[in-house]
Amino acid sequence: MIRTGEQYLESLRDGRVVYVGGELIDDVTTHPKTRAYAARTAEFYDMHHDPELQDLMTFVDDQGERRAMIWYRQVDHEGLVRKRTYLEAIIRKFDGGSTPRTPAANNTCLITYVDDPQPWSDQSIGTGGRDLTAGIREFYQLVQDNDYNCVPAFIDPQVDRSKDRTQVDSPALRVVSTNDDGIIVRGVKAVATGVPFADFIHLGVFVRPGMPGEEVIYGAVPVATPGVTVISREATVKDDPVNHPLASHGDELDCSIIFEDVLIPWKYVFHIGNPEHAALYPQRVFDWIHYEALVRQYVRAELMLGLALLMTAHIGTYQLPPVQVRLAKLVEFHQVLRAFVIASEIEGFHSPSGLFKPDPLLFNMGRAHYLENVKNIVGEVIDLAGRASLLFPSEEQWNEPALHDWLEQLHTGATGRPHDRVQISRAIRDLFLTDWGDRLSTFEQFNGSPLLSIRTLTMKRADISPTGSIADLAREVCGLSAESDAKSAYESQAEYARRLDSAAAR
Amino acid sequence: MIRTGEQYLESLRDGRVVYVGGELIDDVTTHPKTRAYAARTAEFYDMHHDPELQDLMTFVDDQGERRAMIWYRQVDHEGLVRKRTYLEAIIRKFDGGSTPRTPAANNTCLITYVDDPQPWSDQSIGTGGRDLTAGIREFYQLVQDNDYNCVPAFIDPQVDRSKDRTQVDSPALRVVSTNDDGIIVRGVKAVATGVPFADFIHLGVFVRPGMPGEEVIYGAVPVATPGVTVISREATVKDDPVNHPLASHGDELDCSIIFEDVLIPWKYVFHIGNPEHAALYPQRVFDWIHYEALVRQYVRAELMLGLALLMTAHIGTYQLPPVQVRLAKLVEFHQVLRAFVIASEIEGFHSPSGLFKPDPLLFNMGRAHYLENVKNIVGEVIDLAGRASLLFPSEEQWNEPALHDWLEQLHTGATGRPHDRVQISRAIRDLFLTDWGDRLSTFEQFNGSPLLSIRTLTMKRADISPTGSIADLAREVCGLSAESDAKSAYESQAEYARRLDSAAAR
Amino acid sequence: MIRTGEQYLESLRDGRVVYVGGELIDDVTTHPKTRAYAARTAEFYDMHHDPELQDLMTFVDDQGERRAMIWYRQVDHEGLVRKRTYLEAIIRKFDGGSTPRTPAANNTCLITYVDDPQPWSDQSIGTGGRDLTAGIREFYQLVQDNDYNCVPAFIDPQVDRSKDRTQVDSPALRVVSTNDDGIIVRGVKAVATGVPFADFIHLGVFVRPGMPGEEVIYGAVPVATPGVTVISREATVKDDPVNHPLASHGDELDCSIIFEDVLIPWKYVFHIGNPEHAALYPQRVFDWIHYEALVRQYVRAELMLGLALLMTAHIGTYQLPPVQVRLAKLVEFHQVLRAFVIASEIEGFHSPSGLFKPDPLLFNMGRAHYLENVKNIVGEVIDLAGRASLLFPSEEQWNEPALHDWLEQLHTGATGRPHDRVQISRAIRDLFLTDWGDRLSTFEQFNGSPLLSIRTLTMKRADISPTGSIADLAREVCGLSAESDAKSAYESQAEYARRLDSAAAR
Amino acid sequence: MIRTGEQYLESLRDGRVVYVGGELIDDVTTHPKTRAYAARTAEFYDMHHDPELQDLMTFVDDQGERRAMIWYRQVDHEGLVRKRTYLEAIIRKFDGGSTPRTPAANNTCLITYVDDPQPWSDQSIGTGGRDLTAGIREFYQLVQDNDYNCVPAFIDPQVDRSKDRTQVDSPALRVVSTNDDGIIVRGVKAVATGVPFADFIHLGVFVRPGMPGEEVIYGAVPVATPGVTVISREATVKDDPVNHPLASHGDELDCSIIFEDVLIPWKYVFHIGNPEHAALYPQRVFDWIHYEALVRQYVRAELMLGLALLMTAHIGTYQLPPVQVRLAKLVEFHQVLRAFVIASEIEGFHSPSGLFKPDPLLFNMGRAHYLENVKNIVGEVIDLAGRASLLFPSEEQWNEPALHDWLEQLHTGATGRPHDRVQISRAIRDLFLTDWGDRLSTFEQFNGSPLLSIRTLTMKRADISPTGSIADLAREVCGLSAESDAKSAYESQAEYARRLDSAAAR
Repeated sequence: MIRTGEQYLESLRDGRVVYVGGELIDDVTTHPKTRAYAARTAEFYDMHHDPELQDLMTFVDDQGERRAMIWYRQVDHEGLVRKRTYLEAIIRKFDGGSTPRTPAANNTCLITYVDDPQPWSDQSIGTGGRDLTAGIREFYQLVQDNDYNCVPAFIDPQVDRSKDRTQVDSPALRVVSTNDDGIIVRGVKAVATGVPFADFIHLGVFVRPGMPGEEVIYGAVPVATPGVTVISREATVKDDPVNHPLASHGDELDCSIIFEDVLIPWKYVFHIGNPEHAALYPQRVFDWIHYEALVRQYVRAELMLGLALLMTAHIGTYQLPPVQVRLAKLVEFHQVLRAFVIASEIEGFHSPSGLFKPDPLLFNMGRAHYLENVKNIVGEVIDLAGRASLLFPSEEQWNEPALHDWLEQLHTGATGRPHDRVQISRAIRDLFLTDWGDRLSTFEQFNGSPLLSIRTLTMKRADISPTGSIADLAREVCGLSAESDAKSAYESQAEYARRLDSAAAR
Repeated sequence: MIRTGEQYLESLRDGRVVYVGGELIDDVTTHPKTRAYAARTAEFYDMHHDPELQDLMTFVDDQGERRAMIWYRQVDHEGLVRKRTYLEAIIRKFDGGSTPRTPAANNTCLITYVDDPQPWSDQSIGTGGRDLTAGIREFYQLVQDNDYNCVPAFIDPQVDRSKDRTQVDSPALRVVSTNDDGIIVRGVKAVATGVPFADFIHLGVFVRPGMPGEEVIYGAVPVATPGVTVISREATVKDDPVNHPLASHGDELDCSIIFEDVLIPWKYVFHIGNPEHAALYPQRVFDWIHYEALVRQYVRAELMLGLALLMTAHIGTYQLPPVQVRLAKLVEFHQVLRAFVIASEIEGFHSPSGLFKPDPLLFNMGRAHYLENVKNIVGEVIDLAGRASLLFPSEEQWNEPALHDWLEQLHTGATGRPHDRVQISRAIRDLFLTDWGDRLSTFEQFNGSPLLSIRTLTMKRADISPTGSIADLAREVCGLSAESDAKSAYESQAEYARRLDSAAAR
Repeated sequence: MIRTGEQYLESLRDGRVVYVGGELIDDVTTHPKTRAYAARTAEFYDMHHDPELQDLMTFVDDQGERRAMIWYRQVDHEGLVRKRTYLEAIIRKFDGGSTPRTPAANNTCLITYVDDPQPWSDQSIGTGGRDLTAGIREFYQLVQDNDYNCVPAFIDPQVDRSKDRTQVDSPALRVVSTNDDGIIVRGVKAVATGVPFADFIHLGVFVRPGMPGEEVIYGAVPVATPGVTVISREATVKDDPVNHPLASHGDELDCSIIFEDVLIPWKYVFHIGNPEHAALYPQRVFDWIHYEALVRQYVRAELMLGLALLMTAHIGTYQLPPVQVRLAKLVEFHQVLRAFVIASEIEGFHSPSGLFKPDPLLFNMGRAHYLENVKNIVGEVIDLAGRASLLFPSEEQWNEPALHDWLEQLHTGATGRPHDRVQISRAIRDLFLTDWGDRLSTFEQFNGSPLLSIRTLTMKRADISPTGSIADLAREVCGLSAESDAKSAYESQAEYARRLDSAAAR
Repeated sequence: MIRTGEQYLESLRDGRVVYVGGELIDDVTTHPKTRAYAARTAEFYDMHHDPELQDLMTFVDDQGERRAMIWYRQVDHEGLVRKRTYLEAIIRKFDGGSTPRTPAANNTCLITYVDDPQPWSDQSIGTGGRDLTAGIREFYQLVQDNDYNCVPAFIDPQVDRSKDRTQVDSPALRVVSTNDDGIIVRGVKAVATGVPFADFIHLGVFVRPGMPGEEVIYGAVPVATPGVTVISREATVKDDPVNHPLASHGDELDCSIIFEDVLIPWKYVFHIGNPEHAALYPQRVFDWIHYEALVRQYVRAELMLGLALLMTAHIGTYQLPPVQVRLAKLVEFHQVLRAFVIASEIEGFHSPSGLFKPDPLLFNMGRAHYLENVKNIVGEVIDLAGRASLLFPSEEQWNEPALHDWLEQLHTGATGRPHDRVQISRAIRDLFLTDWGDRLSTFEQFNGSPLLSIRTLTMKRADISPTGSIADLAREVCGLSAESDAKSAYESQAEYARRLDSAAAR
């Protein structure tokens, strides 16, 4: 029942319209710009069929059916750790987080709807009173039963924020009409990652001041729907697995999507029309993928520390006291992220449907910490590697008889074999000094919410305010009387939104 | 049975020789330079007799005796959280960590000996084969039975590190002779905090390259022993509780201690003579107080966040988006420390005697994070308060009829009463802009181990090395074969030391 | 003709109403809270009579009269360097910038008016058409002829920025009526430094959105005017020159000033009534004192570097490679400020009256650099000094026979005499770890304009915009055509204001 | 007489042995991996023949001959500014410093020899008493007369610093024998930039502890000499000028060079054999190219600021206050570097041969500042551009009729034409998010001396020591007597080396 890689690849050959750089891709599973990532995703599906990994990658559901661990519903701390172990295993397998948007990550974005569908339906405007909750539940079941890959597409065109009417005049996706079958949408979703490799586009919005109701659309559209055109930036994949062991593993492609009068049937509509409702979800829909992002960042920090250890050991600087101090900073970076993962889990709570959910304040502050510091950490890895991050032989040079002995001498280090250093160099170069690696970093920087947004939204979402309990100690130290029961801005938010944040927030 | 404040104060009047600044203190409980802190410590003891706090501050031991929670032996995660809740309550009560060296903190430094006394005795050189383990156990029982306050004195004179023989020529404390009664010591311990308020000086060393065996002394000496002279820097206490609500709470006084041919009986000797053994304990003796330090730093971060919230709310800047972003950084600082506390506890392990001990790697990296960032965080609190951190009326000015109405107008804010702002200002000023507050910050910066030492020692203590499992992911990503079983420098350390670090380290 | 210290002190005994902390000061030249700073300022005046310093401290003006160098009008680069050399000499003499607001600094704030008085008069509203230019010129002459000390008082009460009408309801100083003699003012100037030691209060405003015209007042008021009450925060001076060689040199006192229906005669009025005019001068009036501030910061950086060199040499860490690297960062900090001083001078231009003025963009960015980094630099100085910044003997302890030999041994270092270390420790402690030193740092942080303001105002004042020449290179690299002649926001400002900024700005 | 681009290209077809990645390049002027950079360098030469640029690019020497400004001997501040203007013009022309190693930069590394050749000859060991000074002078004349391009090759193999004998066992280039014709060398120079595009390899060493005398070689070798093999890392050039307007301009290629028993005639030998002499030149040979590097970094900072201004103006965020503050930080970065360039020039001095040389302390601290901060500045540019740094259409997509109108709408901004944003995006992407751009950053990070080396060498080279005048102010403030005339480590260096550092250093 669990999808195989072969089934997945087959399903991609469905007439989808995908431009990558200058080319219209005929078949994403075979074109040199896309085939590597398609194969990578197929490998993802096949991992679930590996008998040795069965306990890690799958579980048996209430109906006795074995399913991919994607669909496991954790109801306690132990279950959450099990789920994270699964996500972490995939992240480790795929080069320490070098393919961030696996189906296991993407599909977590659907949880918020099915976790509490009533408000999404009740708060809609323009549905003619239709109940959308059944559709939400059925869609989730459909995706489960087929192990579909649903990529989120939330980001609208970057309009001129210095003008007033820009939300109205933008080419952003909007509902142009509704009928008995569904809604007709037209316009652009400006950024969505991995669309060429997805089954469904999961539509949503980050609401902005002045956004008109018709731009508020949450729902799903198959990629191969007529009228849908996917425009990807140029691919960064390197077609040379030997010299580029990581960068050859595929580029998941960030895309804009044009919708030209596309019908979305009601069964695929989760919500429309209400900016006030949408304003409650700038991050909440993404909570689960943000937790997954923190796990990825934690693994990535381990990889960076590991690379620095291996390289400094090879070039013989590992034991030098100043190098030890710099390595200790990489250790600290890794441990901060470890602490955030662990603490967010143990401080988890039960979501409306009873899922055990990690503490958003902790996992979001963990992500903020990563984004704020990762540039300097990467700089340290490169600096500790020195010239070895930049100047090392190609495999062809290594094998060239006229050069080989000299190159071997040049790369003889304090530990390991000479060629080891070349391999460590390649990993560092691919990760941090290529188009491919830079795209990964930039993706992480803007993925869902950049640092500034995390901070702004944290203050909006978390009950951290001068009237809150967080200031109790300060009030006591200052000799001020306890606060009256003035409501904080946070507490004035809809309770159905707050209960996604923590047990205390209810 | 639990010591009372009155009993404690009485015991301080014992003829101890204490200089503070230019004065020889006749009675530390009444002299203006010392009485506030002595009273503060008496208050600490009395808290244990408060009926409302009984469950928090005390426990009933195996013999059915109620004791101060200082002495509670936690054997699992729940017990550790209980212990931390106790420590945290004291920290909160005493102005968010403004008296770092309470007896509850100081006495944790004795745990390491009693946790595993055998190596301390076995590795000694110069004891004539005496078994020191019984003495270690009995001393710990003595301290428990009397709720004594034992302050650590480990730091030796700051000798010229640019010369070779400096360890030998320094005035550092050393054994000058031994006899049947004990050891005779002479010399200086250069830094010890709170000695004027202690019952015992707990002697130890941070071993340095070239340190001669006679300087390696671990043991205990009553403060009032003849030949012991305590020299404190000038006191920073402010004798004005209204204008200085925090700085009037006493200064715990950092001291040098001179020992002029002082006899330490064998029962108070924990170890002598072996630099190699001592080299294994630069941090391990202090593990428990370092964990307590992290808890204090976490509470302090909450206090700083709270003060910034209260002040920005009062001056009306709280809602401004750039202020929100800056407050979010204070939130992140607080959450990082929270995550480290929580994670170090859940990742705890059992020490040799079965105590449940938090993960040192996590609590040490937490401390490193605090020290690295606290200066900027304090700067932010001051900057967010603006002029209100510096320029505000004294209570006398506030009450002066000619000025009162003007001052009230000047301090009318967006929330609260006008005088509230003055109170918040005083707290910020006392904590960050006085002799008293600066001493607290400087103490934290050097307490036990400054940032550089934490980092250096972490690399020495933790099993983070190119041959360790931490580099497994990097090796896999680079396509390198698994490491041979080369021993890391860490693994070459004595097993009895490593088992204090984690379950995995054994 | 040049004022003597004795003349200055005499003039302070004039019935001024000054509260410091809880006390009403009878005579600022004798009261323990104020006498040290008054004496310091008298010393400033006497320096101008020192025959050895005559060429440095004085000049002969066009009329053949010898005057204090304060009044020297530099008309070229050489003259500017001469002026700076004078300012720098005072800064060095007074403990490396520990009395920032000398008369030489304060009086520079008057230059902008006399440099171009016409706009100040012409743009006034509510003067009944009076010409204020003669008064501006005569006042400047009066101050010159008497070497008066005029302190700026510009900052208004910290009103609730979250409310709309706060500018109107605040107790800020305002014109309550005008008549033939002058203007009657009432209200508060919230922050002014050194008022108890000044001859005149120099009134001005930093205009804020919504400020009513009646709060816009630029002019001068003698401190001893009836109706003027000066309220200073508590003094931080330490009355112990031996143990506190720096902190005993006086506290210049930050004050609020209450004006209760005070008449300011027209001859002392520079401008009233026009917020739009005032909006052009948030920094420009302070340009000269900001340049002086950069010179002070540059000298302060040299002092910090010097202290770190002396201390690390004494404790023997100077030669250690990691210490060398940390000292190099202090060197860099010093050199950045040196570069800014030098470059702002060589890039100077002629102001409206022909003064040679340093480049504001450069000296302001220099100040921004200082403020952004100084906390970490101070942290480094303290950290490099280690315990020696905190724990060292008082002079009384040093001289105590029972302690002396031990203390001498404890402070024997790699270089110099043992007592030297104590002296270096005292300087570091006084500068960075006392009420007095903290006030100096906090003053620098908020003096005139904190970091955020410098940045915001730089973007408002400097011709750095997407349409400016600064983007020419970027346009060329991007292959974009040259910008049309769209005016930048900066270029839309009044030309009479822009010509204070640079030659190019005209 | 000045070389033309065509002459230059012709001279490259000389049988040189160059491997780039997997290929042996037949003709560097035509091969796709190398032709773009060769053409770029030809363009450099042709700029000197542009009649409009004649005054900027050339000068008439004492013999009345017009020469490239490379060879201009500045003897005063004005002349130095003229030289910098020339260097700056080239840097601006070539994409704001995207081809760092032009002949104008490379050849500056020869100045130090010809500036004072005597010590190079006198201090040599193993020349049989030959006078090398005539050769040094003649070689410099030869290079001038032919406008040759001489690339420095100083960096030796990255040997295991954890072992003792590594200097001896390394494959580093060394003298294997000498004879009447010259010296025979064998071994590797590990890193040299732009060798495939050079006429001569300029050999030198950075001496390391334990380096044997035979590895100390300073001299010159034509690239096309038999026995010389050049091994370059893979090229990062993008062969697509439309989509990659910058990255298509060529990659200067970092190389290792193998010398298999190559004869260097005595006329091309500048120095051999003396590690003590070589130890004085870790940076001094590179002083002139380091000054050029600072000029490049200054221009690069201007480009980054300009790109951020253009992009934020286009996407309409430029006017937002938080964006203004962030742009102000880019302004500060630019102004710091501007200040360092200006100040290092005005603080210049005369070198042994009378050249006017900028102050090394200032230009080196400027470089340190750049390296320390550039990562965060780049991060800011990318962050301010947001998604536009990553996701934008290819030119082919832009021109595709099915997509054009949508893409135009998507890129309509607050200013300029829609396609402008794509062009700004391409520049940002090419500079910071490609293999090509990453190589530029990494080159800058390690070029000559990384941050740590700059700091370490500054402390070794500059007279900044506890006994120096830099500590005078601190000594005075501490009340310490003036320093005895103890010599600092710096002052103990050979005077002939110190006189390259400043006028004061003599």
